[in-house]
Amino acid sequence: MSNLGKSPIPEISELPIGLDTSGTRSESDSMGTVDVPADRYWGAQTQRSLQHFSIGDDRMPKEVYHAYGHVKKAAAVVNGRSGRLAGWQRDLIVSVADDVIDGRLDEHFPLYVWQTGSGTQSNMNVNEVISNRCIQLTGGELGSKTPIHPNDHVNMGQSSNDTFPTAMHIATVTAITDRLLPAVQTLLTTVHERADRWCGVIKIGRTHLEDAVPLTVGQEWSGYAAQIRHGIDRVEAALHGLFQLAMGGTAVGTGLNAPDGFGADVAAQIATQTGMPYVTAENKFAALGGLDAMVAASAALRSLAVVLMKIANDIRWSASGPRAGLGELILPANEPGSSIMPGKVNPTQCEAMVMVCIQVLADDTAVAFAGSQGNFELNAMRPIIIDNVLHSATILGDMCAKFTEYCVSGIELNQHTIAKYVGRSLMLVTALSPVIGYEKAAAIAHRASADDSTLRDAALATGFVDGDEFDRIVDPAKMTGIENIDGNE
Amino acid sequence: MSNLGKSPIPEISELPIGLDTSGTRSESDSMGTVDVPADRYWGAQTQRSLQHFSIGDDRMPKEVYHAYGHVKKAAAVVNGRSGRLAGWQRDLIVSVADDVIDGRLDEHFPLYVWQTGSGTQSNMNVNEVISNRCIQLTGGELGSKTPIHPNDHVNMGQSSNDTFPTAMHIATVTAITDRLLPAVQTLLTTVHERADRWCGVIKIGRTHLEDAVPLTVGQEWSGYAAQIRHGIDRVEAALHGLFQLAMGGTAVGTGLNAPDGFGADVAAQIATQTGMPYVTAENKFAALGGLDAMVAASAALRSLAVVLMKIANDIRWSASGPRAGLGELILPANEPGSSIMPGKVNPTQCEAMVMVCIQVLADDTAVAFAGSQGNFELNAMRPIIIDNVLHSATILGDMCAKFTEYCVSGIELNQHTIAKYVGRSLMLVTALSPVIGYEKAAAIAHRASADDSTLRDAALATGFVDGDEFDRIVDPAKMTGIENIDGNE
Amino acid sequence: MSNLGKSPIPEISELPIGLDTSGTRSESDSMGTVDVPADRYWGAQTQRSLQHFSIGDDRMPKEVYHAYGHVKKAAAVVNGRSGRLAGWQRDLIVSVADDVIDGRLDEHFPLYVWQTGSGTQSNMNVNEVISNRCIQLTGGELGSKTPIHPNDHVNMGQSSNDTFPTAMHIATVTAITDRLLPAVQTLLTTVHERADRWCGVIKIGRTHLEDAVPLTVGQEWSGYAAQIRHGIDRVEAALHGLFQLAMGGTAVGTGLNAPDGFGADVAAQIATQTGMPYVTAENKFAALGGLDAMVAASAALRSLAVVLMKIANDIRWSASGPRAGLGELILPANEPGSSIMPGKVNPTQCEAMVMVCIQVLADDTAVAFAGSQGNFELNAMRPIIIDNVLHSATILGDMCAKFTEYCVSGIELNQHTIAKYVGRSLMLVTALSPVIGYEKAAAIAHRASADDSTLRDAALATGFVDGDEFDRIVDPAKMTGIENIDGNE
Amino acid sequence: MSNLGKSPIPEISELPIGLDTSGTRSESDSMGTVDVPADRYWGAQTQRSLQHFSIGDDRMPKEVYHAYGHVKKAAAVVNGRSGRLAGWQRDLIVSVADDVIDGRLDEHFPLYVWQTGSGTQSNMNVNEVISNRCIQLTGGELGSKTPIHPNDHVNMGQSSNDTFPTAMHIATVTAITDRLLPAVQTLLTTVHERADRWCGVIKIGRTHLEDAVPLTVGQEWSGYAAQIRHGIDRVEAALHGLFQLAMGGTAVGTGLNAPDGFGADVAAQIATQTGMPYVTAENKFAALGGLDAMVAASAALRSLAVVLMKIANDIRWSASGPRAGLGELILPANEPGSSIMPGKVNPTQCEAMVMVCIQVLADDTAVAFAGSQGNFELNAMRPIIIDNVLHSATILGDMCAKFTEYCVSGIELNQHTIAKYVGRSLMLVTALSPVIGYEKAAAIAHRASADDSTLRDAALATGFVDGDEFDRIVDPAKMTGIENIDGNE
Repeated sequence: MSNLGKSPIPEISELPIGLDTSGTRSESDSMGTVDVPADRYWGAQTQRSLQHFSIGDDRMPKEVYHAYGHVKKAAAVVNGRSGRLAGWQRDLIVSVADDVIDGRLDEHFPLYVWQTGSGTQSNMNVNEVISNRCIQLTGGELGSKTPIHPNDHVNMGQSSNDTFPTAMHIATVTAITDRLLPAVQTLLTTVHERADRWCGVIKIGRTHLEDAVPLTVGQEWSGYAAQIRHGIDRVEAALHGLFQLAMGGTAVGTGLNAPDGFGADVAAQIATQTGMPYVTAENKFAALGGLDAMVAASAALRSLAVVLMKIANDIRWSASGPRAGLGELILPANEPGSSIMPGKVNPTQCEAMVMVCIQVLADDTAVAFAGSQGNFELNAMRPIIIDNVLHSATILGDMCAKFTEYCVSGIELNQHTIAKYVGRSLMLVTALSPVIGYEKAAAIAHRASADDSTLRDAALATGFVDGDEFDRIVDPAKMTGIENIDGNE
Repeated sequence: MSNLGKSPIPEISELPIGLDTSGTRSESDSMGTVDVPADRYWGAQTQRSLQHFSIGDDRMPKEVYHAYGHVKKAAAVVNGRSGRLAGWQRDLIVSVADDVIDGRLDEHFPLYVWQTGSGTQSNMNVNEVISNRCIQLTGGELGSKTPIHPNDHVNMGQSSNDTFPTAMHIATVTAITDRLLPAVQTLLTTVHERADRWCGVIKIGRTHLEDAVPLTVGQEWSGYAAQIRHGIDRVEAALHGLFQLAMGGTAVGTGLNAPDGFGADVAAQIATQTGMPYVTAENKFAALGGLDAMVAASAALRSLAVVLMKIANDIRWSASGPRAGLGELILPANEPGSSIMPGKVNPTQCEAMVMVCIQVLADDTAVAFAGSQGNFELNAMRPIIIDNVLHSATILGDMCAKFTEYCVSGIELNQHTIAKYVGRSLMLVTALSPVIGYEKAAAIAHRASADDSTLRDAALATGFVDGDEFDRIVDPAKMTGIENIDGNE
Repeated sequence: MSNLGKSPIPEISELPIGLDTSGTRSESDSMGTVDVPADRYWGAQTQRSLQHFSIGDDRMPKEVYHAYGHVKKAAAVVNGRSGRLAGWQRDLIVSVADDVIDGRLDEHFPLYVWQTGSGTQSNMNVNEVISNRCIQLTGGELGSKTPIHPNDHVNMGQSSNDTFPTAMHIATVTAITDRLLPAVQTLLTTVHERADRWCGVIKIGRTHLEDAVPLTVGQEWSGYAAQIRHGIDRVEAALHGLFQLAMGGTAVGTGLNAPDGFGADVAAQIATQTGMPYVTAENKFAALGGLDAMVAASAALRSLAVVLMKIANDIRWSASGPRAGLGELILPANEPGSSIMPGKVNPTQCEAMVMVCIQVLADDTAVAFAGSQGNFELNAMRPIIIDNVLHSATILGDMCAKFTEYCVSGIELNQHTIAKYVGRSLMLVTALSPVIGYEKAAAIAHRASADDSTLRDAALATGFVDGDEFDRIVDPAKMTGIENIDGNE
Repeated sequence: MSNLGKSPIPEISELPIGLDTSGTRSESDSMGTVDVPADRYWGAQTQRSLQHFSIGDDRMPKEVYHAYGHVKKAAAVVNGRSGRLAGWQRDLIVSVADDVIDGRLDEHFPLYVWQTGSGTQSNMNVNEVISNRCIQLTGGELGSKTPIHPNDHVNMGQSSNDTFPTAMHIATVTAITDRLLPAVQTLLTTVHERADRWCGVIKIGRTHLEDAVPLTVGQEWSGYAAQIRHGIDRVEAALHGLFQLAMGGTAVGTGLNAPDGFGADVAAQIATQTGMPYVTAENKFAALGGLDAMVAASAALRSLAVVLMKIANDIRWSASGPRAGLGELILPANEPGSSIMPGKVNPTQCEAMVMVCIQVLADDTAVAFAGSQGNFELNAMRPIIIDNVLHSATILGDMCAKFTEYCVSGIELNQHTIAKYVGRSLMLVTALSPVIGYEKAAAIAHRASADDSTLRDAALATGFVDGDEFDRIVDPAKMTGIENIDGNE
């Protein structure tokens, strides 16, 4: 049907990556010619975008380009298999795409986040760089688009509209599975280990920040562990939607200019390349018009942030002091805490964690808002969505790694303080409640509080219980039920 | 172990609900006595809360009390089974709890959302109302707490700390399954039906709001259907976490004052009562210290809002006009649209939907923020979380029902306009791209645009294709690939 | 120019408000006839909206209608002055508008928040109610629109597009000045009084939750006072934008069908009616297309919420305990704190305040999002914006009133605990730093911490200072600089 | 009082910036020694932070360090004036601080945003770098802290707790006044110019996306201009709070270790250095415990984003097409719009603007949340706040510059299309309403719509008006009231 693929087979050299030249060269697109830096592979459209969108310093994350490498490679493999690309064209594109995947061409992807909402300019950046690198390898003239054309060959059967969300999904899955989850998993393991280690240490519970009935430190930390585990579950569940790829939808979801089955074939090829169970999205109109799996992934990251913020706050409050705070935990002293107060040590990892969690919540509002702003066949808010989701996954993952290493792993208990609080708590009276009733129990607590006496003294003074009964019932260890703790979590 | 349950069996009369009196009566709690309205069942703690927290007009949703009825009923059944409550006590509490469940005691639950963060006051409201109603039925003295004591009997084996999140989960599951999902499901069915009906109507696609390649109206609507269905899937997935109940954790998660297995038994009983697969939460410290399943449920509601906002916007833009807009859809004319412009009709259902979706996103930020603010053994942000989640589920469900009935069901296509746009679009040139290459195709499009000519005329003028070739390749129907549409979604 | 105003002067009776009838009556609009409840004044358009938009239970706040009363009254006065309305028409409308302003017709305004985005249906609700009440007073036939027509007379020279934002501004100014600011001002006065009362009580400072150098309780509270005062300043500054009214812009900002100067005249009349310095907005296209002054007002409410959340958190943490917390403050014991733990008292007002503040932040995200979603000549997100802003102002105001009365006013210091913390703090070492240098001072602090000794003992042990020097320099009172406190704030 | 300042006067050389060495050197702080890169000026505390907080790739913005240069310079000047620093010490610190201000030491400030919440590590980074550069210039040994000690001299009279928020305010004022406001002002000027140029071009108004009464393009754009101007006003008003500096509060607000008047003197000196009216904050406890002026500044940036999003949306919708959209505006064709659809041009600047505005709203939620999370004497959420505020100011400013240059400046009107819409609109009937009444006017509009006839034909067919009357009243130009436009905005 077309003559586009029929070039003679060129000789392919093994040149290292890089253009050893200076100044500028001329590149062209359908709008005319543009000067580009001579030592860069990109072409006219990338250069136009650089000029029109140098806004702040938010660059499209490199992870998007690495993912795009998978897209271009898989498309070339499938196009080669069907004969739409000649074998040497396929091999050449695949080889350069591998360089993209591995980050060896990173400096040739300079574009900003704030660009066209479809990500077209980043797609063209990839097309142009692969094209020119292929041209270089075949001894051609950079910018000539021969023998590998950015649109006709590298982008064959594709559109930005289906490749960009495909790259978004791949980049997000990679960030979550390679960078986030391992770090959270290590945190979970460490928290679990602490829950086990401290399973027999009785402490006073706190509800509403006020003294409550006792539990063990291990029980408290088993709660942290359970919350983190549920958070991990939610993130893993969100991967399911991300495994569905838009590829094959091309411009508006109909798959125009892509052969039958192209989407499914490319998804299968990407699955092979990455070892992840990617499949083609059931409905391509939904996959281009919405970014719902990304919005859901962001919500899952937020779930984790909500949990981690609570834990970080608990830890820093429990470690407050050293002499005018709660003082139950002793955190590692990583840095001098003050430029003016000598000897001060602060819960810096916890503070950083709280800030990271707030940022993840804020990033998530950007994602949800942007997710709602699609129109017709395209959600043109893609760059902001991928940037915020990758940002959240990255800082949350790295933060968990640091938090584990420099905070949780080094936490010690201040057993003396913990025991002191248990000893003088009034809320142990709760154990009496099923026996003497809520109201008499309350009267004992009020009396102890008013007299600043111990609970035992107050109880005996009321005559509602005798000493033996009190000692039998008001037993902190028994109150924690720790004989049953094994099955918990 | 305790004497608390051993009252003589009283005679139980069949009095209708209501206290036929006026003025006030005295009620007491551990802090002293308080006057309450004589025609209400509530007691001292409810009255204190009313006095201290009459803030705005946000009342704790009735759905929370209906759910609480299930909690109190199930606890009574389990306490009766184990003999901790006498049979007649159990039956009496169960009978009144059924009235709570069915809303017959709604006017006795007056408290505000802005109260203690644990929901204790609403729990006590339920305890007091059930106690006094039981007292009334046994001919006792209101406020005497005999023979059914609010704390010792109605609240037996329970704390606000475990019952309130249990009620939150039940109320949320009920709102989602009874009110939200049926409405969304009906919308989905209607959208699907439209996708089928209009599967052969070719329209111009739009990306970046700009003319793109064609698709069919049915394809576009199949995308809507897929997005809604994924939204439903996400909401249903969120139910899983809500099925796990905190009951049995009592004050801090240890289960103090609840017998072994109480949580599991009560959850099983609630499952029986409601027909929903409730189970006891694996880790009660997590269930009290966090509200993560609620945060995740809110995120799922938001997923749906993000989708519905996009669809509502598409519909109102597609219907814009009638003479200076896109004009592809004709919406039902439900109301006069303007107080000053006679004959104006507006896309009011779409506007309401957009506002509802924005509200759901905002409610969700409240939930996530509040979800992160737990401390130690309690997240004391429960009232704001349940209020916002129920609000979102309710308005989203009701809105879907109205949107289906008064908008989607009555939409007609303006076939003339739709066809006109297809006829004059320049983007049909895309079909030529695989044959003549992207650059020649671009030249044709630019020429047609510059000359304000048809694409065919411009194409022929360039000499890149002849008329036959053009007519064969640039076929809108073929471009939509509608012969393949059947398998889609 | 028109014959619309020329009815004969009818006799006006003094009927009380109310329609003593049952069943329904028929009302009509440009789309046909509709049955409405016979005992309500509203007409066909209100009824249509009720049918199409019964979504959740969010009703358009009554405050919007009270404000609308001012709009209709002022318009009638100005139309009467120019002769466009006859004197008796003017008087009749003014008289009924006064009933609207005073809330006497509240039950005739049933509409939901989720309606058309322009608020047209609420405007028509007001027009219809005033029309029918006027008709009743003149012995006419309800629904006849004679002698006072809802559009031609009550809405004369107006559109929903300019009257609704006018009513939004008036309702917001009223809520802020009548309900919010007085309550915040009282809180400020109370906080100030505490700052003065406790100006000489030395306490340990806390930064990063960790012990820091001392300050006085009064200094800490002077910070709260300053933050609240700045918050009030920001809210008051936001009123400026709200004083600018859209009236006179009519349908799209051009003022079509309103006479010259109508906007300015009506604004002046509203200023007279309300005693507030309303003026006509400089640019009506901006006033209809955007709701920027509302977005800014919401941001100002949020400023206050941010401050109050910090203060409420400080108070509840400072009061934590009673025996395992910080315990520096003693809060009033307003309610029993637990259904299971007898004698427990919780910082419930602080918790409610934190939740209210979170809600205000969430409401604000709805307002900002909606504020960004205008199109062309109209921002059709008005109902959600007014509902959220009034909600925030109301709950924040009421919460401040309760917080002052039931929390701040009753706070006592635990002087013993406060002094104890000062006595054993290590951070007093900071005073030595300018004399012996940061590093030697740090060494002293580390030594005291390691030995669990007093700072004085550790300091003397190092030999860096002698006892006299230590006592002279390390003087907590001197460290707070309280001799200078008078000029502060 | 202290011996700390009394070093002999060293000889000061004129070495260029830079450390010409490799490997590492040892640096120490109160916790011990650490290896740092030998070619960097930073010391032990910076190095510790780098190790503990390498999270994502968010670095503390350089603008914070430039602002910190002003703080250190001003403090040295004031300390020199009072004799606390020797003249040569002052001069040396001032000279190096000037290098910090001018960005010449940027590569020596490597720290991450996610660090201690007080910003202490960035303050120490500055102290260490200035100290070591001073040491280098005096021929001393790097890391010896002699003759210029990071804490005792560079940080003299200061704490991170007062210097960091001071630097935050300065950096924010600088970003707003140097980068944001000039760009927004240029946009405003350009929009104003367009409003003037197009003041006589009549177009159809649109409300609810539906055809409404006419206005001129100039009127519409005058609304944009007014909204932008109000946005600028709000940003400028927010500067007022930022001009108040925390300096002088030191560790907790009491000013411990700073001499009397230090805060006021330093603020005055910073004012002199920057030309901005900085003053000392009235209440230092508020200035350290809260970051309210930053939260308010963020809200002001958001005000602008809300406005710009609406305008960008209007422009891209107005330019939609070219053949199946509204098509009233013609945007500059900056880049090829599609990798698959040849000849496509998209509203890329508008899309980028919408995304930037969403990001600003999201950044603002981070700021508000973090602003609410202070505790006691410190809000330890400073890094996240300054990072988000500077991010918003920067991307909003840069985006406005690009939007002006590559979009607004090049917009042309499609006069033909604009006129066509006016000619066939039905809403011109509104002009008849005051003459024949709303209901007859509505009947005409409905008839024209049903018959697909012109409004004039329908009007005449009803007999409500004759042709002359129609032509006199229904005059689009008159309806826009453009004879009155001059005074507007």
